[in-house]
Amino acid sequence: MPEVYKQLIDVADTLERHYKDMQDIEFTVEDGTLYMLQTRNGKRTAAAAVKIAVDMVREGLITEDEALLRIDPAALDQLLHPRIPSDDENKKAGKPNYDVAFKGLPASPGAAVGKVVFDSEEAFHMAAKGEDVILVRVETSPDDIKGMHAARAIVTARGGMTSHAAVVARGMGRPCVCGASDLRIDTAKGEFTARGRTFKKGDMITVDGVNGRVIAGAVELINPDLSGDFGELMGWADKRRKLKVRANAETPLDTRTAVEFGAEGVGLCRTEHMFFEEERIPAVRTMILSNDEAGRREALAKLLPMQRSDFEEIFRILGERPATIRLLDPPLHEFLPHTDEDIAGVAKASGLSAEELRRRAADLHESNPMLGHRGCRLGITYPEIYEMQARAIFEAAVNVSKEGKLKPVPEVMIPLVATHRELDILKKLVDETAKKVFAETGVTLDYMVGTMIELPRAALAAGEIAQAAEFFSFGTNDLTQTTLGISRDDAGKFLPAYSEKGIYEKDPFVTLDQEGVGELVKIAAERGRKTRAGIKLGICGEHGGDPASVEFCHRTGLDYVSCSPYRVPIARLAAAQAAIRGARK
Amino acid sequence: MPEVYKQLIDVADTLERHYKDMQDIEFTVEDGTLYMLQTRNGKRTAAAAVKIAVDMVREGLITEDEALLRIDPAALDQLLHPRIPSDDENKKAGKPNYDVAFKGLPASPGAAVGKVVFDSEEAFHMAAKGEDVILVRVETSPDDIKGMHAARAIVTARGGMTSHAAVVARGMGRPCVCGASDLRIDTAKGEFTARGRTFKKGDMITVDGVNGRVIAGAVELINPDLSGDFGELMGWADKRRKLKVRANAETPLDTRTAVEFGAEGVGLCRTEHMFFEEERIPAVRTMILSNDEAGRREALAKLLPMQRSDFEEIFRILGERPATIRLLDPPLHEFLPHTDEDIAGVAKASGLSAEELRRRAADLHESNPMLGHRGCRLGITYPEIYEMQARAIFEAAVNVSKEGKLKPVPEVMIPLVATHRELDILKKLVDETAKKVFAETGVTLDYMVGTMIELPRAALAAGEIAQAAEFFSFGTNDLTQTTLGISRDDAGKFLPAYSEKGIYEKDPFVTLDQEGVGELVKIAAERGRKTRAGIKLGICGEHGGDPASVEFCHRTGLDYVSCSPYRVPIARLAAAQAAIRGARK
Repeated sequence: MPEVYKQLIDVADTLERHYKDMQDIEFTVEDGTLYMLQTRNGKRTAAAAVKIAVDMVREGLITEDEALLRIDPAALDQLLHPRIPSDDENKKAGKPNYDVAFKGLPASPGAAVGKVVFDSEEAFHMAAKGEDVILVRVETSPDDIKGMHAARAIVTARGGMTSHAAVVARGMGRPCVCGASDLRIDTAKGEFTARGRTFKKGDMITVDGVNGRVIAGAVELINPDLSGDFGELMGWADKRRKLKVRANAETPLDTRTAVEFGAEGVGLCRTEHMFFEEERIPAVRTMILSNDEAGRREALAKLLPMQRSDFEEIFRILGERPATIRLLDPPLHEFLPHTDEDIAGVAKASGLSAEELRRRAADLHESNPMLGHRGCRLGITYPEIYEMQARAIFEAAVNVSKEGKLKPVPEVMIPLVATHRELDILKKLVDETAKKVFAETGVTLDYMVGTMIELPRAALAAGEIAQAAEFFSFGTNDLTQTTLGISRDDAGKFLPAYSEKGIYEKDPFVTLDQEGVGELVKIAAERGRKTRAGIKLGICGEHGGDPASVEFCHRTGLDYVSCSPYRVPIARLAAAQAAIRGARK
Repeated sequence: MPEVYKQLIDVADTLERHYKDMQDIEFTVEDGTLYMLQTRNGKRTAAAAVKIAVDMVREGLITEDEALLRIDPAALDQLLHPRIPSDDENKKAGKPNYDVAFKGLPASPGAAVGKVVFDSEEAFHMAAKGEDVILVRVETSPDDIKGMHAARAIVTARGGMTSHAAVVARGMGRPCVCGASDLRIDTAKGEFTARGRTFKKGDMITVDGVNGRVIAGAVELINPDLSGDFGELMGWADKRRKLKVRANAETPLDTRTAVEFGAEGVGLCRTEHMFFEEERIPAVRTMILSNDEAGRREALAKLLPMQRSDFEEIFRILGERPATIRLLDPPLHEFLPHTDEDIAGVAKASGLSAEELRRRAADLHESNPMLGHRGCRLGITYPEIYEMQARAIFEAAVNVSKEGKLKPVPEVMIPLVATHRELDILKKLVDETAKKVFAETGVTLDYMVGTMIELPRAALAAGEIAQAAEFFSFGTNDLTQTTLGISRDDAGKFLPAYSEKGIYEKDPFVTLDQEGVGELVKIAAERGRKTRAGIKLGICGEHGGDPASVEFCHRTGLDYVSCSPYRVPIARLAAAQAAIRGARK
C-alpha cells in the first residue's frame, strides 16, 4: 500500500475519533500528496447506525448516552418490519429491477407479499386457511377492521396519510400503500387495473410500504434483524428512560408482538374491535336493533363469553403487566351494515325487513358521529352494555388468576368523559359489577377505574374527575380533533394546504400540537395530581409512538406512553433520549 | 263600604308597602272582625310585573334597581311577540275553546296565523306575494333557511328543543312548534294528518309557540304592547348595564327589528344566509362546482353585487352602529342539492349530468362536517371567496358613506380560527382588499378585523391571535360543541338522559357551561387583553340572549353580548341585573 493511503487511513481514523462518528470524507491525491477536502458525518441506514453506535461504545469512543442520542428513533421503524432489498442491493445481487405495478403514499412501513383480495370478509377466510393476502380497497372503513387484521398489507386507491386505512394500518403494524390514484378496482369482475395492466383476485403482489410501491409478483423479503446490537442499544435505553412504554393492542397477536417489542403493558385495548369479528357481529347487531333493555341483555349474554375469552387470552399473554381496557366507544351505527348486499344479509339473519333495517339505521344516523352518541354516553344510556363488558373483564381476570400464579391487573377505562358526574355514575356500575363477580367466584383482585381525557372539558375539569379516576389516559387523537376542531377523516381536504402555508408545522395527528393540545394535557396533569397525588398518567393516542410527542410526555411528567406494538422500540428510544436531554439541561 | 273592608284595604296597603311587592293575601271575616291568614308576593304575567314594578317606583316604594331586579328577563319573551288570548281570556270573552289540531314542543315563543305550506321554496314565493304562511316540515335543514325566513311560524314533526328548526326559529324570532309526533306529512298529496284529521296545503292554522299547540283556523292575535311602562323599565336597564347589547342579524327585516328592540349594533351577520337566496344559489353552486380558480372567480363576480347590496342595506339601517360581518363559514356541500328532484334541477341548470353532480357532491361529503372544511379553512384554500366578500363589505361601506353623512363601521370577522397563522394570512387578504377598494373609490373608512373564538385551541392561543385580531367574538355554540365534544344536531339522542341524571344541570346549548366553556372564555379574555389591552370582546352564540349566560359575560368583563333580535330586551334587562348584583357584592 502506498504511503499516501496509510496516511489517509490514519487521518480518517483521527477524524472519526475527533468527531466521534463515522465520517464521509472527500480527499484528493496530487503528486503523491494527500489533500483532505471535506469531512462530515456519514449517512447510514438505521441498521448501520445502530451497529456503528454500539461499536463505538465498545471501543470506548462514545458513552451509552451518546450512542442513544445518535440514533433517530423514527428510523428504527425500518428495522422492525420485513423489508424488500433496496434497489441497490437488488442490482448488486444481479436481479432485475422491480416490476412496479403502481405507486401510492408510503402510509405504513414494512413490506409484505400476498394474494390480491378485494373483500374484507374474504381476506379473513383466506387468512384463516393460512394464505397470505393483501387487502386492496378503494378505501377502508371500520367494517374492514377484521380484513385488515387478517391481511399482510393494505392498499387503497383513495385517502391520504391520515385516512382510515393509513392510521389503522400503522396502528396494526401492517404495511400500507394508500391513495394510489392509478388504481382502478372493479370488484364485480374481481380485478384491478393500474397503468394499463390488469391484476386478478389471487394474483401475487408485493407491497413496499416504505416507498409506497406495489410490485407485481412475490419479492423475497429480508426479515428484521433484532440481533445483539439492537437488543443492547434497547437495554441502554430502558436503563435511561423514566417513561414506561405500553402498547395499544386488542388481539392476542398484537399483544404478543407488543410484549416481544418490550411493551410493559397494554395502554389501550379497544373492546369494539372484538365486536367486529364474524361470529360476534350478529349478536352485536341484534343488541343494537333490540327495542328494549331485555332484548339488549339477551344479545349481550351471547357476547359475554366471547369477550371474556378475549380478555383471558390477553391477560395470559401479559402476565402481571397491566392492561387498560376501554369500554365500548364508537357510535352504534358503525356496527350496522351499509351496502345493499350486507343489509340484505343482516335483514335475513335478524328477521327484520331490509326496509325496517334501513329505517333503524337511518334513526341512528348522525350528522357528526365523532361528537355524537358514543363513548360513555353509550354507558349512560345503555348501562347494560358497560355492565356486560365489566363482567367479562372481571370474570376473565378471576379465571386466569385461578389457572396459576398470575394476577392480572385490569384497568377499566371509561371513554369520552366530559364531567365528573359521568364518571361517578359509571365507576359505580363497574365497582358494583366487580363486587358481584368477586362474590360469585370467591376471588378478589386489584383493579383500577379511570378515564380517557380526550375532550377539552375533561382536561379543564380534571381536578374534579380525579376524585373518581384512578388514572388518566390522554386520548390525544380525539383531544386533537376537538381542541383544533378538525375531523381527522375530513382533514385531507385542507391539511395539505395548511402544511404548505406553514399553518401547522407538523401534521397535528402525527406530532402532538404542544401549544394547544399540549397545554390541555399539562392543565389536566396538574389538576389531576392536585386532587390525587399519585394518579397514573399516560397517553394512548397515535402520538405515543412519535418521538417529539414522547419527549413532550417526558417533560410533562407522564408515567407512560402507549403506542402501536411496532412503535414500542421507537418509543423506548425516544423516551431515553428525552431523559438524557432533560438531565443535561 | 263596611268598616272591615276599609280595614282590609289599609292592611293590604301596609303589607304591600312592607314587602314592597304586590301581595296575594288570604283573609277571613268572622263576626265582623278581619282575620289575616297569610300573605305572599303575588304571581303575575310579565306585563303585570312590568306595570307593578314601574308603578311602585313612581309611588316611591322601591328604587329603579329594585324594579329591575323584580322582573324575570326570560319572561319578557312573552311581551315581545304577538300572542293568542289565554284560555281564560278566551273563556271570559265567551269564545269557544281552541280547536287544537295537535301538540308539540314549545320551541320558540309567540303566535302566528297563516296558510299551511310544506315546501320552503313555495313558502318563499307565497310570502313574496304577501301571503302569511306557516312552514310545516318533517324536520328542517339549512336548505330551508329561506323558507323559514319567509314563514310566519315553523312546525316540525321531528326534532327536539335544540333541533335545527328550534334553534333557527328562536334565532329568527319565529314562533315554532317542533317534534309534533302526531303530525304525519304527505308532501305528495299536499296534506298532513294529525289525530285523525286531515289538513290541506293552504288551510289556515294558528301556531302557539308558547304552549306548543297548533290550532285549526285563524285565531285573532294580541299584539305586543311595548308601551310606556316597558319602555321606561328598559331605559332604567340601559342606564345601569355595563354590557352593550347587539343582535345577530343578516336580513334587513331582522336588522330593523333588532334596532327597534334597542340593539346597539349587529354582533353577527352570517353571510352564508345571503347565499341561500333563490337568485343567488345558482351562482354559489356554479362557484362550488368549478374546477379551477378562474371558474370560481367568474361565479363570485356574479355574487359580488348581490352581497354588496345586502351590506349596503344593513349599513343604512344601522347608521353609525357597528356591524360584525362573518365571512363564509359552512362547508360548501351545504349549498349543493340533496334530493333527487333538486339534483335534477341543478344538473339541468349547471350543464353537468346528474351523475357527475352526485359524484361532485360525494367528493365534498364529510364524515364530521362540523369539524371539516369550513370557516377560515375555506378562506385559506379558496382565498378568492373571502376576497369577494371583503370587497363587497368595503364597497358597500364606501357607497353608503357617499350617500350622506353615515360612516358605516364594518368589523370583518374570520371564523373558526385555531392558530394565529390562519388569521395573519386572512387579515392580510382583507387589509389588501380594503386598500384596493379605498384606492379605487377615493374614500377611506375605519374598519376592524377580528375573529371568532369558537375552538378550544383559539381560546388557549388567544394571546398570539390578539396580535392580529382587533376583536374577539366568542362563538359559544361551536365552542360548546368542541369543548364538550357534543354535536348539537346529534345531542337529542342522549342529552335528555343526561338532564334526567343531572349530568348537565342545564342544557349547555341554552345556558353557557361556565365550568368548562366558561373557563376557556375567561382564559381567552385574559390572554387577549394581555396582548392588546383594549381588545373588544363579545359573545355571539345563542347564549348571548340567556340571562344566566349574560351575567357570566358581565362578570367576565366582556364588552357586549349579541343575541337574536327578539331577545335584545331580555339581554338588556339581564345585563342591568348583572351590573346591579355585581355592584352589591
